[in-house]
Amino acid sequence: MKRIDIHTHIIPEHLPRWAEKFGYGGFVNLDHHTNCSAKMMIDGKFFREIQSNCWDAAQRLKECDEHSIDLQVLSTIPVLFSYWAQPKDAYDVSRFLNDHVADIVRKFPERFIGLGTLPMQDPQLAILEMHRCAETLGLAGIEIGSHINEWNLNAKELFEIYAAAEELDLCLFVHPWDMMAKEKMPQYWLPWLVGMPAETSLAICSMLFGGVFEQFPKLRIAFAHGGGAFPGSYGRIRHGYEVRPDLVAVDNPNHPDKYLGKFWVDSLVHDIDMLDKLISLFGIDKVALGSDYPFPLGELSPGKLIAESGYDEDEKSWLNYRAAESWLGMLA
Amino acid sequence: MKRIDIHTHIIPEHLPRWAEKFGYGGFVNLDHHTNCSAKMMIDGKFFREIQSNCWDAAQRLKECDEHSIDLQVLSTIPVLFSYWAQPKDAYDVSRFLNDHVADIVRKFPERFIGLGTLPMQDPQLAILEMHRCAETLGLAGIEIGSHINEWNLNAKELFEIYAAAEELDLCLFVHPWDMMAKEKMPQYWLPWLVGMPAETSLAICSMLFGGVFEQFPKLRIAFAHGGGAFPGSYGRIRHGYEVRPDLVAVDNPNHPDKYLGKFWVDSLVHDIDMLDKLISLFGIDKVALGSDYPFPLGELSPGKLIAESGYDEDEKSWLNYRAAESWLGMLA
Repeated sequence: MKRIDIHTHIIPEHLPRWAEKFGYGGFVNLDHHTNCSAKMMIDGKFFREIQSNCWDAAQRLKECDEHSIDLQVLSTIPVLFSYWAQPKDAYDVSRFLNDHVADIVRKFPERFIGLGTLPMQDPQLAILEMHRCAETLGLAGIEIGSHINEWNLNAKELFEIYAAAEELDLCLFVHPWDMMAKEKMPQYWLPWLVGMPAETSLAICSMLFGGVFEQFPKLRIAFAHGGGAFPGSYGRIRHGYEVRPDLVAVDNPNHPDKYLGKFWVDSLVHDIDMLDKLISLFGIDKVALGSDYPFPLGELSPGKLIAESGYDEDEKSWLNYRAAESWLGMLA
Repeated sequence: MKRIDIHTHIIPEHLPRWAEKFGYGGFVNLDHHTNCSAKMMIDGKFFREIQSNCWDAAQRLKECDEHSIDLQVLSTIPVLFSYWAQPKDAYDVSRFLNDHVADIVRKFPERFIGLGTLPMQDPQLAILEMHRCAETLGLAGIEIGSHINEWNLNAKELFEIYAAAEELDLCLFVHPWDMMAKEKMPQYWLPWLVGMPAETSLAICSMLFGGVFEQFPKLRIAFAHGGGAFPGSYGRIRHGYEVRPDLVAVDNPNHPDKYLGKFWVDSLVHDIDMLDKLISLFGIDKVALGSDYPFPLGELSPGKLIAESGYDEDEKSWLNYRAAESWLGMLA
């Protein structure tokens, strides 16, 4: 059975010296200290070790074959979003990264689908680059962060971006980054284990209660990590809406249940009970295989949880590729 | 069948003018603007409206009878913790609140069990007051916050408090407060809907990976709101430990599975699937009815989710009272 992995990250092997070019720091550089691995460095400080499968298309294809993944959806690593930078510089970074993704997709169109990144902190520049992503580069969608600096995803400033994405038929992939309160949880990898799920719940709640799903019914949005803490907290969130609409329903009067089944999540929950929960909450046509390849916190054997689940062949076809295809707009 | 509600909040009808007494603000006052409701005010600013069932024991007993709740475990409202205050002042506040809870319990010993609060920011004063809670006031345990100012619950400074609680046979009830990143989510009640679940996941992870469960195996700890975002994120948390022990297992080498079933959670998840998940993760003997009475985000009909679940009578006996009794140390 065909399998599409909607959640994989990629980075160009060589990055421009953005800090030198722009005159200030905060940008990622790669230190290729061995043949098959590199250190991601920010202002000379070690951020994360990555392997060649993070940039090498041939290596990725080899591993896709080993894992029986037919198609990977490529997106940048959130630390490269550069939302914090000067807009024109983030625009420059986005163009570089989008060109790279488009180039890989052009070389292996049967195996990769590309998502772009945008200078979201400047909606006009973001829309300009979004047009290029859709009309010139042939990307299928855009990866965005769980918030944009001081804006949550309900910020009115972002609505014209959503409108443009809907019009251009680009899907959105919402990925946690810049984890809330990371400075308060420096130990035990907790920004990744506690902060990221909270970020994604924040993102979904912001779009839901902020009326984004309501105002852009054709915009196809998927959330990473199975929607983070949202599915497990949804009982509380829903009850909050019901008992305090004066606090919760201020921008959108509708019950949150209305929007279940209107957006997608990936399957990256590492827990069969929670996969079941995603499916019962969002519908089997809204849960798409996603592995966070090639990172260790991802599903190391992409799609294994789905493969080992008790779902039947038709149900698995949704999880393995049909939900992905509908999110990506490949079914039209 | 007997029913114990382990998660209820209480406040004295009249609070001292702490700001005047201590010479600085931040403390709660009550403005009894009607006969049966009051405004919680902080430095003249409205915080929350509460009803008389928040302070009036007779009203509480009437509602307990209506809800078939035999026994309420009383704890203060987290905004009264006063961890941010001068230690000697928080000690004073704690003594006042603990005297109040003990007084109610003394009057209705068949209907109420009391938890104390401590000036956790000063472990020596906290232990002093903890002895009074156990030895003089007859309280069953202590409610603590999901973090103590800059300390997460793995802070070494807190270990002597845990040791004293274990020695005094006092249980702990961990409740979210001072929600992470609340300034980043001012809308839609999100500090309560997103921040609180994240706080409780932070608290559990901190105790787990910080070795608190390991070092204090007899300490009986329960977490509010069904453990917040922890149960739904546990697949990710567990996987994080497995793939990056260099980051996660730095203070405690053991697999996190070791501690499932060693701590309690309340049943306040508003979602039958998540109640099932709590039970499969922690064991039915570790999930205790808790409603957050008398607040609207709680279970408005305490124990309804359990009553309507498909568990049999023996299983429901654990959920309704036996898990509570074992946490409270009433079975010994």
